[in-house]
Amino acid sequence: MSKTAYQDVERRFAEIVDLSSGVEILSWDQEVMMPPGGAETRAQTMATLQGVIHERMTSPDLVSTVRTAQRGRAKLTPRQRRGLELVRRSVDKATCVPADLARELSLAQSRGLEAWRVARTNSDFGAFVPALETIVDLVRRKAQLRAGKNGALYDALLDDYEPGMTTERLDELLDELEAITVPLVRKVVQSDVRVDVRPFVGKFKIDAQRDFARQVSEAMGIRFDQGRLDLSTHPFCGGTGPGDVRMTSRYDENDMRGGLFGVIHESGHGLYEQGRDPNKRRTPLGGAISMGIHESQSRLWENNVARGKPFWEAWYDRFIDAHPKLRKFDVDAIWRAANIVEPSMIRVEADELTYNLHIILRTRIERDLISGEIDVTDLPARWNESMQSMLGITPADDAEGVLQDIHWAMGAIGYFPTYSLGNLYAAQFMEAARSSIRGLDRKIAKGDMLTLRTWLADNIHRHDQTFTAEKIVKRVTGKPLGTEAFARHIRKKVKAIYG
Amino acid sequence: MSKTAYQDVERRFAEIVDLSSGVEILSWDQEVMMPPGGAETRAQTMATLQGVIHERMTSPDLVSTVRTAQRGRAKLTPRQRRGLELVRRSVDKATCVPADLARELSLAQSRGLEAWRVARTNSDFGAFVPALETIVDLVRRKAQLRAGKNGALYDALLDDYEPGMTTERLDELLDELEAITVPLVRKVVQSDVRVDVRPFVGKFKIDAQRDFARQVSEAMGIRFDQGRLDLSTHPFCGGTGPGDVRMTSRYDENDMRGGLFGVIHESGHGLYEQGRDPNKRRTPLGGAISMGIHESQSRLWENNVARGKPFWEAWYDRFIDAHPKLRKFDVDAIWRAANIVEPSMIRVEADELTYNLHIILRTRIERDLISGEIDVTDLPARWNESMQSMLGITPADDAEGVLQDIHWAMGAIGYFPTYSLGNLYAAQFMEAARSSIRGLDRKIAKGDMLTLRTWLADNIHRHDQTFTAEKIVKRVTGKPLGTEAFARHIRKKVKAIYG
Repeated sequence: MSKTAYQDVERRFAEIVDLSSGVEILSWDQEVMMPPGGAETRAQTMATLQGVIHERMTSPDLVSTVRTAQRGRAKLTPRQRRGLELVRRSVDKATCVPADLARELSLAQSRGLEAWRVARTNSDFGAFVPALETIVDLVRRKAQLRAGKNGALYDALLDDYEPGMTTERLDELLDELEAITVPLVRKVVQSDVRVDVRPFVGKFKIDAQRDFARQVSEAMGIRFDQGRLDLSTHPFCGGTGPGDVRMTSRYDENDMRGGLFGVIHESGHGLYEQGRDPNKRRTPLGGAISMGIHESQSRLWENNVARGKPFWEAWYDRFIDAHPKLRKFDVDAIWRAANIVEPSMIRVEADELTYNLHIILRTRIERDLISGEIDVTDLPARWNESMQSMLGITPADDAEGVLQDIHWAMGAIGYFPTYSLGNLYAAQFMEAARSSIRGLDRKIAKGDMLTLRTWLADNIHRHDQTFTAEKIVKRVTGKPLGTEAFARHIRKKVKAIYG
Repeated sequence: MSKTAYQDVERRFAEIVDLSSGVEILSWDQEVMMPPGGAETRAQTMATLQGVIHERMTSPDLVSTVRTAQRGRAKLTPRQRRGLELVRRSVDKATCVPADLARELSLAQSRGLEAWRVARTNSDFGAFVPALETIVDLVRRKAQLRAGKNGALYDALLDDYEPGMTTERLDELLDELEAITVPLVRKVVQSDVRVDVRPFVGKFKIDAQRDFARQVSEAMGIRFDQGRLDLSTHPFCGGTGPGDVRMTSRYDENDMRGGLFGVIHESGHGLYEQGRDPNKRRTPLGGAISMGIHESQSRLWENNVARGKPFWEAWYDRFIDAHPKLRKFDVDAIWRAANIVEPSMIRVEADELTYNLHIILRTRIERDLISGEIDVTDLPARWNESMQSMLGITPADDAEGVLQDIHWAMGAIGYFPTYSLGNLYAAQFMEAARSSIRGLDRKIAKGDMLTLRTWLADNIHRHDQTFTAEKIVKRVTGKPLGTEAFARHIRKKVKAIYG
């Protein structure tokens, strides 16, 4: 009886997965392929489709079947119990948001994106204010419904991106991270060491950049019969999971770092998606554990692998073949150039060290925005003050300040901190990989990245959501998430380069 | 009361349009962008999404609201009455096919496509027989449900593609078309004139072909901020209507005709889509009138404009700039080469004259298949006999014979005749345009194609489905659809080239 009820839950959930896969491809198309004239039609299509998903997620049939299945929990296998728990959480989240609000949110997001694009192009924050106010208002209403009477609003939002994380624990981690970072940044800024940036900054053919990046991506294990790599203004990794992964990037003739490390970053996400279990895809267990775990996979490849010296030992010759005028630089010079630390305006272009300050800044701002401590119109001033106090620089205009990121325009509030959580997870996973795989760095230096890919797939990717983030970190690293591994990693690197 | 009911019908229908727009983009992606690994996931997504659409189209709420609105018909405006009629037809079509049959059909189509691909590759019709027998059986059952006790089965199928057309009228038109075509083909075959094909057949850079085709498309009035032109194996025009039109093409280094006239053809479809009224898009009136009218727009630009001498007077210099080695050919030589008539095996590569014989052959065969006069196993023999008697040639094998087209494998029976109807509509519309627009050919010869585009948009495109095909033809040309205009057009051209 209870088994039948769970099977019914799975069957209903599979159709929700199908529809969500449709949303994934339509979102990718919206960013990568859609002509501008398609925006309004797409907004309506997305809103209606999200509405159908919401309708199914909250349907009395599903709700009562979940309840029946829960009464028979005792007879379920542990995996089925985890599946049921995941469905129940999704159903609960959906049922406490009325269909009208869900639809309004979807429309506000599509429209927010368009308004943000225009505002960013003209560096005109004022033009974005009405759309963003609508979004913040709707997101806050959603959070209130989710959090209940006494719950913290920001916790309710965090839960969408990092299930199990609390604002309290997050604040502790970010405070520690700030305490690790600030003295290192001061040390670098005051250092006499000047790293030569010319291995990456100059004039480089886009084709050569793209071909090299694609070679690296393939060597990491990305399968292009199960995915694509395209261009977009805001690089991301989407798609429908194993079999169809959609990565994007952008290349700059004058600075290769964004293109190369961007492709490696998105390929890290892509490997997670391609490494997931195809047999779990249409089941409640299918999917990534959290955005933080997802980000750990991109960061691990970008920072812990491709900004390490072994990587450059392996790839030096092919890099020089792609850009022959770089022959005067040796492996060491290229590795140093890949790790230059310099406070800068744009998060996605920030170095590994200062990056987390950008995240801490955004997290604190959005937390205060949601609590009502500040208003949308306060954002530019608050942003610029924070940049000055944390990084010692002030944006010239809002385009390189508060308008630089797409997240708030998408209604993705609570998302930013997962980037720094990703950095923490990544350092901890990489330490575990090093102690599990004999001579991992020697392998990477010989061009073998597949051993690491396989280890990650076996230990993380193929489990999908079988384990919580907390559990997978303990399984893989033996400890809960902390800042120690990252502190060791970053201090060692900064010391090696800046003394 | 009735007005409220109609508004409710419109509201429900708008969401069906949204979901169908999703299907459109997902289908385009499937053909143009999706990596092979995405096939299985996409099949499930499409099936579920089509299921949701069918569910909404047949929902008791919509059915009863339509009935209520119909009882208050008298108080509706003529446009609302037409909108209600369109929704009622869609609802009736959906409700008279039980969900089980719809699912069986969808499954048979997926299997049919797979079986057809294998059979075509091996030129083994026998391998396709079981799948096609299932499809024909299910399509016949669908037709029986649609047609009712005394209705003609083929009429019921035609109605999906050319609403209002009857088998009786179609037979008359196709008989006339055959009587016009056969003597002309005989004349060409017996003629001593040999047209030099080298303006299009040789070795031509793909980039130059693509750039030239795109220039022509833009000059026709295609707006690339409201559409895309990509590559695909089977060229088509899809998308979600005004604002987001997705055209595809393919280019052949050795023969420019498929690429150039293909882009012009798809741009004709694209102009129809871009010319539709954005305000009707999410309403029952939104959409193309029929497949025949749609095809008339592609054919008009491909055959009546771009295979005409004025077009080549305007484009000669740019064509020669793109392919300098063609300088030895003059406008007349290029125009002649664009109009070579030669009986051939493959429909999609056929010239303007023999093309209709391919269609007449297919229409008669599928009509007899549906009436039960012939069986699936009779198809290859019937096909080859017809090719011999109509075109004087016999396919070497089934791959270049009965297996060449995808339509039957997709269960699209009743679709083929709309290609020839498109040719007839096109000639009749073009005559009307010539008598409405002073010096139209002189304008085209000077590179002005926008005057024609605007005329087509004003007279046809922007009305969407406000009028039936029958009504729009009468409005635009003053006469019902006939073969006379096409006869005049094709006789004149064949005489000019073959004497």
